[in-house]
Amino acid sequence: MSATHPPGQRGDSDGREGDRHARAVWSALAEPGDAVAGALVQACGASASLAWTADAVATGRVDWSRLEETAGELDGALRRRVETAVRRWAPRWRSLDPERDRAAASRCGARLVVPGDPAWPRGLDDLGALAPFALWVRGGPPTAARSVALVGARASTTYGERVTVDLAVELARRGWVVVSGGAYGIDAAAHRGALLGGGMTHVVLAGGVDRAYPVGNASLLEEVVRTGGSLVSEVPPGSTPSRGRFLQRNRLIAAVSHATVVVEAAWRSGAASTAHHAARLLRPVGAVPGPVTSAASAGCHRLLRDGVAVCVTDADEVAELAGTVGADLAPPPRPEVTRATDGLEPPARRVHDALSRRTARDVEQVAARAGATLAEARAMLGLLELEGLARRVAAGWVVTDGHE
Amino acid sequence: MSATHPPGQRGDSDGREGDRHARAVWSALAEPGDAVAGALVQACGASASLAWTADAVATGRVDWSRLEETAGELDGALRRRVETAVRRWAPRWRSLDPERDRAAASRCGARLVVPGDPAWPRGLDDLGALAPFALWVRGGPPTAARSVALVGARASTTYGERVTVDLAVELARRGWVVVSGGAYGIDAAAHRGALLGGGMTHVVLAGGVDRAYPVGNASLLEEVVRTGGSLVSEVPPGSTPSRGRFLQRNRLIAAVSHATVVVEAAWRSGAASTAHHAARLLRPVGAVPGPVTSAASAGCHRLLRDGVAVCVTDADEVAELAGTVGADLAPPPRPEVTRATDGLEPPARRVHDALSRRTARDVEQVAARAGATLAEARAMLGLLELEGLARRVAAGWVVTDGHE
Repeated sequence: MSATHPPGQRGDSDGREGDRHARAVWSALAEPGDAVAGALVQACGASASLAWTADAVATGRVDWSRLEETAGELDGALRRRVETAVRRWAPRWRSLDPERDRAAASRCGARLVVPGDPAWPRGLDDLGALAPFALWVRGGPPTAARSVALVGARASTTYGERVTVDLAVELARRGWVVVSGGAYGIDAAAHRGALLGGGMTHVVLAGGVDRAYPVGNASLLEEVVRTGGSLVSEVPPGSTPSRGRFLQRNRLIAAVSHATVVVEAAWRSGAASTAHHAARLLRPVGAVPGPVTSAASAGCHRLLRDGVAVCVTDADEVAELAGTVGADLAPPPRPEVTRATDGLEPPARRVHDALSRRTARDVEQVAARAGATLAEARAMLGLLELEGLARRVAAGWVVTDGHE
Repeated sequence: MSATHPPGQRGDSDGREGDRHARAVWSALAEPGDAVAGALVQACGASASLAWTADAVATGRVDWSRLEETAGELDGALRRRVETAVRRWAPRWRSLDPERDRAAASRCGARLVVPGDPAWPRGLDDLGALAPFALWVRGGPPTAARSVALVGARASTTYGERVTVDLAVELARRGWVVVSGGAYGIDAAAHRGALLGGGMTHVVLAGGVDRAYPVGNASLLEEVVRTGGSLVSEVPPGSTPSRGRFLQRNRLIAAVSHATVVVEAAWRSGAASTAHHAARLLRPVGAVPGPVTSAASAGCHRLLRDGVAVCVTDADEVAELAGTVGADLAPPPRPEVTRATDGLEPPARRVHDALSRRTARDVEQVAARAGATLAEARAMLGLLELEGLARRVAAGWVVTDGHE
């Protein structure tokens, strides 16, 4: 793109289309998570800030008065950050080609989604200056009334993958949309489980949505698109995923989801970074525990220890974590094998414990053994007899196995 | 014991020996955790409260003026509780036989330990009115400068037992005394691990210390005594363990330990009750996570979810939990496989990521790819070259595998 004809200066630069175009350019110009670019766009709008940048890149000097007219006065430190940012954008300016990006998007069936579009996930706005300028999207809109991110290690175990699939299947069946990063391991298991459960799933990619990355998940990603889910990226089609972009991508996963759950993660891991992003956004964070002997669970246990995450062990607990307080409460403690004596109050239980199956005991012996008064022992024996838990025999009382 | 010659009324009833004798009687008379007995002994002393009780049992009526002289005025509800308690103690009064208990203790090599004795674990005093009256002890003193309870399910898994043994071995090697309940499963693994680690371990029993309970652990319990550890109970030798006593025993495990760690526990379990006792005593509580697919870990996960316990995964973390703040901190994050690029700051890493192994790129291309200024790209390339992570070739720069 020629610097003398800055991409932000088009006839409709102040309208919706101008904003859309400028955001597409910003998505190619600034690296994901570039806070200076984000702040400029927030302060002056995408079009005006792009026009200003075009001028700065072309002339090699920054027009402070024009910038401060809308952005307000900038102190020395801020000015230095802006100057550095302009020098950072300059080398990339020359390789910008919005038409090429648009063509690439059209070839892979991707469209641009910008703030204000119905398909824009509102959760992204919580990122403030770190919000993406735009999203490149394949498939359905990357929004959801109820969404939860299931993320985790690429180097997952059979245990972790099985738990992830189970969680995703159950969540999908209850209408939750599962969000993840499309990577091998836990991410793939999350998407696969959501599809198995008949649900929708969104894949937030670090590179362009035209690149199935990793290649081994290509058919899974196509399946996501076919079933109404979406592939999402903040960089234009054709962009390569880099380590920095993987890390920045994690903030998007956290921001588009109502909660983030880490299923397996090494001590230091990208999934843990997603959890921290979610925590910073005040979104609920869950971690699935695993064997302490498994390195693949060390990151989850670390999140639990640090108080970043809540321990979650099944879909009920994930739904409670991610859901509306009160409306999505996990069911009460699961029923276990119940014993006939379960409902007994402590005094009755003590008297029950004082009885033998074979040796008959009289009331006084029972009272002494139970540490009960004679009256208590008598009353409790009557109660136990009613419940079918004790039986009167010739020589006193014996215990029985419940209703006989 | 004859009610007309109450056991508390001896010549030295006001001295150390009288107190010791009265506490031995109380330990046989009141069920563990009898708060009325505990409050009486706290208010009036063991001897005086026993003499008063002897009188009440003998005459069938309670002498309020004598009691309120030391205990202070009692309201109606309290009076009713005391009256009920006297009726509760009466049936057992007749079967009291301090001489028989003393003889049984002597036969099994047990001795009585009471508050004020050097062997009395000071942590028990935190139980207030629920503190035991005395401890019957076989082996060394049941005290420790640093002690931690490792408790858990009888129905343990191989995973849980292995983790318990590992924890106990490591803790013992560092001088921690391991406390547990002597049961099958996790308890036994804890004691065994402590012995394997060359350490000391205390077994807090629900029944008398003369009864190896469960029988299958008899040789383990003898080994504990032989190695300077102890068997401890608040009921006299000869007493049977009952369900109520098992539950009350758990408060002693929690109280004599600086922290309590649950390794495996079913959703509803005695180990969880020990954890709750510890939490009520404001002692640190830990839970070891496990597979969410294992019912034996459900109680641990519940403790984590409820915020009762902190997640602990190794001996370092248990020591940190139980130890002095600051002095016993777990070591910083364990080192993982380190990459040559680990120490790089974000700008250098972005430039590193922008390089290819085969395709040489010039500074401008690198800057554009990295989203860096030309100056940054140049500086970072120089830095990477110094670190041996990038190499200058004819057509520009390529990445290398670190020092070559």
